[in-house]
Order: sequence, then C-alpha cells, then structure tokens
Amino acid sequence: MKLMQVTDPETVLKLIAEHFQPLSTETAALEEAGGRVLAEPVYADAGIPGFDRSTVDGYAVFARESFGAGESLPAVFEYAGEILMGRPPPRLKKGCCFLIHTGGALPEGADAVIMLEYTATLGSQVQAFRQVAPGENVIHKGEDLRRGEEALPAGRPLHARELGLLASLGAAEVAVYRRPVMGLLSSGDELLPYQTAVLPPGRIRDSNAPALAYLGQKYGAEVRQGGILADSFPVFLEKSRELLKQSDFLVLSGGSSVGSRDFTARTMQELGRPGLLVEGVSIKPGKPTLLANCGGKPVLGLPGHPISAQLVFSLFGAAILRRLSGKKARPFPPSVRAVLSRNLASPAGQAEYVRVKLEQAAGEVTALPVFGRSGMLSTLTAADGFLIIPAGKEGLVEGKEVEVYLWE
Amino acid sequence: MKLMQVTDPETVLKLIAEHFQPLSTETAALEEAGGRVLAEPVYADAGIPGFDRSTVDGYAVFARESFGAGESLPAVFEYAGEILMGRPPPRLKKGCCFLIHTGGALPEGADAVIMLEYTATLGSQVQAFRQVAPGENVIHKGEDLRRGEEALPAGRPLHARELGLLASLGAAEVAVYRRPVMGLLSSGDELLPYQTAVLPPGRIRDSNAPALAYLGQKYGAEVRQGGILADSFPVFLEKSRELLKQSDFLVLSGGSSVGSRDFTARTMQELGRPGLLVEGVSIKPGKPTLLANCGGKPVLGLPGHPISAQLVFSLFGAAILRRLSGKKARPFPPSVRAVLSRNLASPAGQAEYVRVKLEQAAGEVTALPVFGRSGMLSTLTAADGFLIIPAGKEGLVEGKEVEVYLWE
Repeated sequence: MKLMQVTDPETVLKLIAEHFQPLSTETAALEEAGGRVLAEPVYADAGIPGFDRSTVDGYAVFARESFGAGESLPAVFEYAGEILMGRPPPRLKKGCCFLIHTGGALPEGADAVIMLEYTATLGSQVQAFRQVAPGENVIHKGEDLRRGEEALPAGRPLHARELGLLASLGAAEVAVYRRPVMGLLSSGDELLPYQTAVLPPGRIRDSNAPALAYLGQKYGAEVRQGGILADSFPVFLEKSRELLKQSDFLVLSGGSSVGSRDFTARTMQELGRPGLLVEGVSIKPGKPTLLANCGGKPVLGLPGHPISAQLVFSLFGAAILRRLSGKKARPFPPSVRAVLSRNLASPAGQAEYVRVKLEQAAGEVTALPVFGRSGMLSTLTAADGFLIIPAGKEGLVEGKEVEVYLWE
Repeated sequence: MKLMQVTDPETVLKLIAEHFQPLSTETAALEEAGGRVLAEPVYADAGIPGFDRSTVDGYAVFARESFGAGESLPAVFEYAGEILMGRPPPRLKKGCCFLIHTGGALPEGADAVIMLEYTATLGSQVQAFRQVAPGENVIHKGEDLRRGEEALPAGRPLHARELGLLASLGAAEVAVYRRPVMGLLSSGDELLPYQTAVLPPGRIRDSNAPALAYLGQKYGAEVRQGGILADSFPVFLEKSRELLKQSDFLVLSGGSSVGSRDFTARTMQELGRPGLLVEGVSIKPGKPTLLANCGGKPVLGLPGHPISAQLVFSLFGAAILRRLSGKKARPFPPSVRAVLSRNLASPAGQAEYVRVKLEQAAGEVTALPVFGRSGMLSTLTAADGFLIIPAGKEGLVEGKEVEVYLWE
C-alpha cells in the first residue's frame, strides 16, 4: 500500500490561492449584486451631496448675521418659512431665516444652520442664543464625494452598506464577478438517493448531497447535482468530465471503499493538467481529502463520512468558492471564545478539529467536547462548532480559553 | 413639542418576543428547507444504522476465535473474501474472516472487526496480533437511532448537519415554518427611486430600499418592495394597509421631515390593534425608531439616515424575522474581540453604537473608531462593524478589550 503524502491545512489554502483565479465578470442589477464582489471601481458621476444640506434640525441663516449672539443677547431673524424636503430651495433674504430639517437643501445664500435647541420663536421672529460660523452644520455639495472620485474600489464585497452607497450614486448596474457553478457528485456503491423510502440490505442514503448543496449555496454558488456514481472508473471519468464542463468547481463526495477513493484520485489526474495537488491533509477528521487543478478548474475530493465531509468543505470548499467569487481569504471567521470544560488529549503531528457544544451560564460560555463513535449520525447535530488543537500540541487543559468556530 | 418616550433596546427585544409568534407551517422538500426551522419533531422510521456496520477498515471475525491472540501468538483466520459496499452481506463460516471497509455491512454471524493495522496476510491466511471483544469496532443496527426515536426536535434550525441527518433518515419532506414576507416602503418627499439618472435640485436617491431588501433576504425573508410614499397621510395609510395585507412584516423607512415621521406613527396606530409599542429607543444612532403590533403583525419604522436604518434593522428587524421564522433569539452573534485604539467618550443614559474599522497586525486585532459628519455616505462603508458603549458608561478607554459585532 502506497503511503499517503499529507499536506498541512495552511499549505492547502495557499495552493488554492495560487492555482485558481476569480471567474469572469458580468453586469448585474443592484438587486442581484448583493453578496457578490465588485469587479471594477465605481466613481461618483456627480458630486455627493448634490446640493448644500443641513446636518441638523434648525434655522438656515447668513452666519455673519449671528455673530455676537449669546445667552443674554440673542440675534433676531424674521421667520421666512419652512424648507420643504425635495423642493428647489428658495432664496434667503437679509435678516431672515428658514426652518430647515436634517438633510434639507440650504436656501440660496444661506451659509450656516443654527440648531433648534439654541433658538426660540417670538411671533414671526426667531431668536438665536448662539452664533454660528460660516459652514457650521452644513455639508457642502461634493464634500462627501467629489465628482469623479472613487466611491468603491474593485474587489469590494457588496453588502448592505455598499448597496446603499451605490444606490445613492444611482449606480443601478455594476460589474461583478460571475457566480460560481458548483457541480456535485457522490460515489460509493452503498449509496442510494436520499429520497429512497425503504433501504435494501447493506445500503445507506446519500446524505452528503443535500448537506453540501446547502453549504455551496451558502458560500455563494449555484449548485448542479450530478447524482451518485457507479463504482467503475470509466463511469467516474465520463460523468465527472461532463459535469466539470458545465461547472466552475467540481466536488466529489467520496464513498467509503478503497476503490472509490482510487477512482476519484485517478479521475482527478485525468480530467486536466496539472491534476492532483493534494492527496491527503494533516487534519483529523478529514485526512483523506483530495484537491486537483484540472485545466484551471478546482476539483475537491471529500471523505465520505458526513462529519468529515462537512468540516473539510467548510474549510477548503468555502476557500475555493471565495477565491472564484473574487473574495479575499476570510480575515475574521465567525467565532466565539469559550472556556474548555475538560482536558483534551490529541496526538501531535496533525491538527485535530474537536466538535464542541456551547453552554452559556452567568455570562460565561463553556465549550463541551462532543464525543461519539465514528459514524454516529445522532452526534452530528449535537455540536455548535469546533475548536482546533494545533498540530504542535498534544492537547488542551480544562479551563483554558479557546476559540470556537461556529458551524455554518 | 411632545417629548419622545424612549424604550431601552433590551425591552424592545422582549416586546418582540412577547407580541409576535412564529408563522404557520408548511411542508417543504429538503432542498428548500435549508436555513428554515423544523415545526414538528422528526422520528427515525427505521433503526439507524439499518444493519450492523464496521467502524474501521479491518477483518470481520467471530470475536471468540480471536481470544488469547497477541503479538507473539497471532490468531489465524482463513481469508474468505472482501465485503463489497452496498451488497447484501455473506455468511461468515467458522475459522474464516472477511476484509471489511469502514461503513461496510458485517457478514452474518460476525460480531467484531480486527483493525487492519493489527493484522498481516500470509498466503490465503490472515494473522491477527490482537484479540477483540464481541461488538468491538461494530455499530449495531439501531444503535445510533432506535426505530421511533426522535431524531430532531421541533424548533431546530436546519443547517448542513441537520439536512444531512434528515437525508440519512429518508425524510425527503419536512414540516417547517413559513418564510416571512417582508413589505418595504420608503417615505420622504426628497426621495426618488435609486435608478434615477439625474437628480433635480433638492432630491436624493432612495438608498435604503436596496440595502434593507438585501438584509431582509439575508435574515430569511421574501421581500416585497412597495416603493416611495408621497408625504400625505391618506397615502401613507392606504399604501401601508395594502402592503401589510400581502406581508407578514412591514418596514417603513422614514423620511427626514417631521411630517413623514408623524404620518408613520399615526399610520402605525391606525393599521390595527394594539398599535404603537415603541416610539423611540435609547440608542445612538437609532433613537427615532418606531415599533407597532398591528393586528398581530409587526410594523417597524426606521430612521431615514442610512447608517441608523441599517443598524436598527440589523438589531430589531433581524429579531422580528427570527421570531416569525420560529428561530430562537440569537445566542451568539458573530463578533470578534479587539483592542480599542483610542479613548471614546459617550453621554450616559443611552447605549452608543460606535462604528469601528478592524486592523490586524502581529496577531492582535485593533478596533479603530470611524468618525464622519452626520450623513457622510463615504464613511458608510469604512467600518467593519460596531462596538457598544453601554448606557451606564460614560466612555471606554484606549487599550480596553472590546467586542466588535460584524456587519452583515
């Protein structure tokens, strides 16, 4: 038996970054662009704001007419009316003021706004108990973004705040990276579609297909299900080649048999150059993970065990989909800190990913390791996330503060 | 001017939990159930696993025939063949063994598996250098889940691991809570649809509509856009009533004018009983937030300022959508710990939400407060998240470890 060459997880992430590129770009309406990545910078095609605006509720005035005003000696203005939102602003006359709301357009000629709380009304007159400098409480036309200024750089992921900014600029369509299409194939002679009502002896349902499809969609892919491969190499190769043609990324969820694993590795070698990059990863669980570059497209071979398959996909499948979508490697994965409930031993030499359940009491979060015999489905849903015992450590001690990465 | 009654944010969350209920339930195919919440428990309709399985790669034997075996005195078995995945298992004869893979069906009569690493092959014979107890390395039929046992409880959100478990059980359709429909209306005479190419004087684009729609979808809603309301009370009331009929939850994104805010509050009072629950929240930004229960349906009034609107929606809009979808209040919001880069002052009496940018260097994450004049769009996208200065505190000091909640 050939010894498996294992790669450490950091190197796998590096290989993903080196071997694969963001997909081509396309134009998308703003409603369709959320969660995707801007492929070209967006510039303000007019100054923002488009007019001088008040930043407070108050009275718009000529600043110089307020000079010297104070608690004991108010400046007095003639009330000239209210600035109506969305209407072209009127002209301010000497000695007058207009009531203005936050965001309202400054009357022509006015250069400052006195906040409401420093004023009082007296018949048709407004008293101001504080002086204002020119420009005070005003945001000038083009002060936020000058005409032609870069509003968002290429490579920026578009979330709510970016969509809001683009909408303000009237950027109704933007250039974004194409959404990756992820092909998904399962293998293993013991597998039947999960819809199968009654199982014949020795058969189990393909539970990885719906779980991995959900994760793929969560990470931004459109998922194409290819079904279950019969345990024969020509079938593996042909079906994989066919689905890879229609996809940007192919995932082969492995069967338990040695044959199925060998077929997967051989298929990855034959689908395109340079072929296999990784033939095992130094993590537990997840060691029998395969990664290939087949003519520029990533192909990921996952262990068949549900817990391993989901963990490996959320590490490397997510990284591949981020890369294809034009996203940066995740800088701050969602995690919580917790206190370990017991000692944990781990063999040195490979990183161990330990599933834990979180419990919160008196403001403290405790991480309780979840154990279960290999293949126990009932323990699959008991954990909230996992912690990592690094390859160089032989375990962690009770009471230690640990970082728990949450399942997605 | 009437003083605004403000409610603290924790009380707002309590009101949401008390006043609103999960929506009705429906049956969904597993492919459509991801991210939703199970409305009824799911039971295993057959034992899992459906047959005795090996948990390792090794040789299936009669355990008693291995008794006494050790390093110096191996037990010897006649090799009877390989257990093929997915085929009905053969019968084990006395003195024989079958090669079996992880997950393979135990041959009839066999009661243990000797791991591959404790064996050697010698012609047609297999030597075992370790004894095994009955049941060792075997998971028995029904050991994981007994027939009729609860596999998942009602109320469980369905993520990858739950979908995998349901697929294993052959639960191709499940009862889930209905997806909320969120109606979205903007108000303010200064607003024009964001697709408007050139703005007339005094007008701005409605940037909240696409940003809030994205957040609503992210929190699991189907979003129905109602457009921009003209600043007239009868229009407010009629359009809101119409959209609320088609929705489970109505969001009114407010204009800046006092009139538009008053119309929103009056509309919320007239749409249904008991009406307004909250007419201001003690957070900054976000004070002019309104919440109503209109005949059992939640109606949320957001401040018009983009930063406030998005922050308030990600606090209370998210909580409402979680409640309607049958989800529990968020136990562990995604956050990172960071070190504050400078002193931050804050008036006591209201919680202040300060936007921060995160920077990572030498393994330490620093939180840098983002400042900007009110209404500056260009600062909208500069922050990675926010930290909270509690109502009882007058600020935070430089170097303090803070919890930064990430934007979604």
